[in-house]
Amino acid sequence: MSNIAIIGAGLIGRAWAIVFARGGHRVALWDSQPGQAEAALEFAATVLPDLAAQGLLRGQPADQVLARLRVEPHVEAALADAHYVQESTPEVLDSKRAVYAELDRLAPGGAILASSTSALLPSRFTDHLAGRERCLVAHPINPPYLVPAVELVPAPWTSPQAMEQARRLLADAGQVPIMMRREIDGFVMNRLQGALLQEAFRLVADGYAGVEDVDIGLREGLALRWSFMGPFETIDLNAPGGVRDYAERYEGMYAGLFEQMQRRVPWGGELMDRIEAERREHLPADELAARQLWRDRRLMALAAHKQAVGGDPAP
Amino acid sequence: MSNIAIIGAGLIGRAWAIVFARGGHRVALWDSQPGQAEAALEFAATVLPDLAAQGLLRGQPADQVLARLRVEPHVEAALADAHYVQESTPEVLDSKRAVYAELDRLAPGGAILASSTSALLPSRFTDHLAGRERCLVAHPINPPYLVPAVELVPAPWTSPQAMEQARRLLADAGQVPIMMRREIDGFVMNRLQGALLQEAFRLVADGYAGVEDVDIGLREGLALRWSFMGPFETIDLNAPGGVRDYAERYEGMYAGLFEQMQRRVPWGGELMDRIEAERREHLPADELAARQLWRDRRLMALAAHKQAVGGDPAP
Repeated sequence: MSNIAIIGAGLIGRAWAIVFARGGHRVALWDSQPGQAEAALEFAATVLPDLAAQGLLRGQPADQVLARLRVEPHVEAALADAHYVQESTPEVLDSKRAVYAELDRLAPGGAILASSTSALLPSRFTDHLAGRERCLVAHPINPPYLVPAVELVPAPWTSPQAMEQARRLLADAGQVPIMMRREIDGFVMNRLQGALLQEAFRLVADGYAGVEDVDIGLREGLALRWSFMGPFETIDLNAPGGVRDYAERYEGMYAGLFEQMQRRVPWGGELMDRIEAERREHLPADELAARQLWRDRRLMALAAHKQAVGGDPAP
Repeated sequence: MSNIAIIGAGLIGRAWAIVFARGGHRVALWDSQPGQAEAALEFAATVLPDLAAQGLLRGQPADQVLARLRVEPHVEAALADAHYVQESTPEVLDSKRAVYAELDRLAPGGAILASSTSALLPSRFTDHLAGRERCLVAHPINPPYLVPAVELVPAPWTSPQAMEQARRLLADAGQVPIMMRREIDGFVMNRLQGALLQEAFRLVADGYAGVEDVDIGLREGLALRWSFMGPFETIDLNAPGGVRDYAERYEGMYAGLFEQMQRRVPWGGELMDRIEAERREHLPADELAARQLWRDRRLMALAAHKQAVGGDPAP
């Protein structure tokens, strides 16, 4: 059991709080904005019974997990005995640098300082710190209590020990860490998503397919296998001799396609008019919020399904 | 109820036969290679009870579905009364052109001639036919009885009526057609997969992440939402104002990433040595076949899960 400090208790911070409390840790919530940490606690009180009902609390009752969360009005108190700090403050470089100066000053020397940032490389806001070797990025897909992948991204000066400590803590809490070896914009997941999105926009822009057709291609096609294997294992199983055999058979085809993918289409103008119109035909604007709740319930059901059929498929 | 002719009863053809028989159609199986159609029937006899057990036969008993399949030793007999032909012969242009000349000559005038090809554009093997307006590509991900997406791809001369007839038949049989508006190499799904794979190989080549880390990013991250929403609906729900709001917030970030994605890394040499070594560490070569069976069971369980929680999420 470790002491976790949640610094910034907005959408991401409050979701992290649930992950760590479910993992058996004592979690202190702090936010510079009055009432945010209290709202996070209320959020947890709403979500935890749903997770319990789906069997996603490791057999623990919701109130037992909830009891591990507490609001700390003072950042010093939240950090005083922390072993691990999960920072989820706004994505503004100057304020992030100032926050990290505070974290490094106030947190015990051995504590890991992990940021939820998706937009900033860790080197950009930790270079000035005495304890910069314990700083890293731990970037989730929201909400991390339903989506296990978390990107651990080192700055050039992050120590392997800090990466390993973070990895172990997160893995023990049920997350599945992606261990990046060095930092790069977009990390792994936004780069992969970005590559796919550019082609999706291009296919629609050039009139080959509609928005819904692209979505069908993933949700009724490619993403089914990817949702339990990932793309490398998928191709490893798609040729008799494994991944090398697959590459030998299909590299030429994919190389040809790649040559047609060098042009980026702007995500605005007439193209965005069409895309938005097609989306609003399937989902009116006033149903977006309800659909987000539907998405979260589907994610929860999928997490329960994956747990039931065997969790992490790696041998 | 329609009469379906399966021309080519290998891995793809036999899987299609199950789709159409499950959909209530009479299915004739023919293959130029002796014994192939019979083997396809045996395959169906093995798979159908599994599908029934998972609730994936629309409540029909396996033997009732199996009874709709028959082997036809003569191609003329298979085609004589066909309403829809699903062709799944080898991906060799000259032989495909010869096969289509035969199909066009032998099938009734109103029959749709659909090809399972992934590598050939429909215009390349149907231009010479009197009935070329009824020819199109219906490209599945294997096995189509577990993966509903199917790409319907017109040649420039394919009639809208033929596309619509194929769409209706396939949708009624439980597939989810992607209606392409014109042909392009790789169609929709292999283009999207290719875009993502190029970035996956690049991340590994440049030492940012390992093969397993990329797979985690999909199977424990991105592909969870994609498996029931697709990428456009995902981003539509990821900004308060929908897809336009998302594009306005993040296009700059993705545009920056795109600039770093212009270089293709070859899928061989030292890179492939590393990728293969990492895969074989997770999955020894002599376990590939067992893992393919595991994949098919997982796909079946996922199909049952998606059916249970609500099938197609479109309103």
